[in-house]
Amino acid sequence: MARILTVTPNPAIDVTYRVDRQIVGETIRVRDVRRIPGGKGLNVARVLRALGREVGTLQPLGGEAGSWIARELADGGIPVHPVPIAGETRTTVAVVDDLAHPTLLAEPGPQLSDDEWARLLAVLADAVSVDDWVVVAGSFPPGAGPEHLAAMIDATHRAGARVLVDTSGALLLTAADAGADVVKANELEVREATEVDGLDDAVPRLTRHGATVMVSRGSAGARMTGADGVVHSRTAVPDVSGNPTGAGDAATAGLVAALAQGRDAQTAMEWAAVCGAAAVLNDVAGAIDVDILPELAARIGGTAPSVLER
Amino acid sequence: MARILTVTPNPAIDVTYRVDRQIVGETIRVRDVRRIPGGKGLNVARVLRALGREVGTLQPLGGEAGSWIARELADGGIPVHPVPIAGETRTTVAVVDDLAHPTLLAEPGPQLSDDEWARLLAVLADAVSVDDWVVVAGSFPPGAGPEHLAAMIDATHRAGARVLVDTSGALLLTAADAGADVVKANELEVREATEVDGLDDAVPRLTRHGATVMVSRGSAGARMTGADGVVHSRTAVPDVSGNPTGAGDAATAGLVAALAQGRDAQTAMEWAAVCGAAAVLNDVAGAIDVDILPELAARIGGTAPSVLER
Repeated sequence: MARILTVTPNPAIDVTYRVDRQIVGETIRVRDVRRIPGGKGLNVARVLRALGREVGTLQPLGGEAGSWIARELADGGIPVHPVPIAGETRTTVAVVDDLAHPTLLAEPGPQLSDDEWARLLAVLADAVSVDDWVVVAGSFPPGAGPEHLAAMIDATHRAGARVLVDTSGALLLTAADAGADVVKANELEVREATEVDGLDDAVPRLTRHGATVMVSRGSAGARMTGADGVVHSRTAVPDVSGNPTGAGDAATAGLVAALAQGRDAQTAMEWAAVCGAAAVLNDVAGAIDVDILPELAARIGGTAPSVLER
Repeated sequence: MARILTVTPNPAIDVTYRVDRQIVGETIRVRDVRRIPGGKGLNVARVLRALGREVGTLQPLGGEAGSWIARELADGGIPVHPVPIAGETRTTVAVVDDLAHPTLLAEPGPQLSDDEWARLLAVLADAVSVDDWVVVAGSFPPGAGPEHLAAMIDATHRAGARVLVDTSGALLLTAADAGADVVKANELEVREATEVDGLDDAVPRLTRHGATVMVSRGSAGARMTGADGVVHSRTAVPDVSGNPTGAGDAATAGLVAALAQGRDAQTAMEWAAVCGAAAVLNDVAGAIDVDILPELAARIGGTAPSVLER
């Protein structure tokens, strides 16, 4: 079966600090510390692994933080294609209490040299095979330009594989223009990138070079528009509340799991909805419990993602 | 000349995040990231090195964070006596902007096993020689008890060396009772530890087992009380404003540099005042510029710390 490679151009150690109360200007004792390898592509890879898919991951990693991420991924059974860099991989810190919204402190991440970008592209070209899917997800490091995303899409296509891009801002336009097979974004990201208000007017800006565009709309469900203009819609799974962090990445995993298995657009959207809902119901950000997938699928009258034996 | 060994029982990577504005509940882009090996003993060691003293450092280090600290210290020419531990060395995060006080997020740090405590004591006993000074500074990791501090003091004395302890809370009493040669604290710490309000009444609680007690009083200067009850006072260096972070540790470095060189109590207090003031005037927390020491010493009519050739 086709393998799914995720590319995370700007990975991070995602640190969560639980505190009694967030107060600016104080010394705050951290009650509990959690660290996980973070970045959208790595979140997608974890959910794909829970679904029993064959995955690989590819991200620039540097310094002790990079070593830690590589070791944690390996310990979790997630293969890493190494792309060593001179800079130190970044950290993001989420500060959470029971009273306020979490505060997220996001480091910019290390800039990659031209040689390091070339190395990342060479590793990608070497890792990807015909019929594989590549998922490029998340922000890009400082100094990265549209040419780097376009080169990833190109390297994937040369290998006979397909590529889904989940990013935002100008890179969303780059993805669509450079021939990504699937572009995934939420409604706000589409509006901001295209500077067009209504989805009906904004989406054709993204499909005109052949991309299928999946737009998530929160509780309003999602819409997928093919390059042929055919639109599929689905509702969200009802009565789901909990931890939304990482739910979008779980949805991306459901989507690409279906596409890599040759399922149709409607099924792919159902799997995305079901995986996203499963992530919301899980206390651990972005993790899913595969046992609840059939019940969630039944709520939208859809099919549950298949969970493969490994 | 006598060597000065600093012991940092609960070291940290001290991270400083500069942001435009601290707001609870928002996603905040970090504009600038600084990381330094942190913990009071390591701050003391850096200033001693700037003064040209022969130093050594000794701290439990674990995981990638521990490796990073060890490498940074070695790169800065500060010798490390390794005490490897299974846990991951902690991080502290200071979030600073131009509007509010900094927010400090302090991780508790890894607990040490009995074997790891035994190893730390063995490394200390092995590293320290007759006439050396040992500085034990900062908080202790979770699960540590007074017996660990008492054992460090004992190991130092068995080697014919002397020990200065800079800590707070119940451990301040432990230090005094276990025979530390010098105990350093600020006025508030002395009041909290002894539960006695006036310094005249509180200090004898700390000197009764032979400790000399140095109490810093901010802009009011400092007082040193010997076991014989003789009190020396000095004023603070006037007209100094800037970054107070790490100034107390710089003062400790000045103090122990003088004592290790056989200088008298009054000179030791002057060196402490001058080094502390130099740290306040430096943008980098706890760092000093040795060229300004004579001018600062002149302001209090005292002698400047000698800066030795290495």
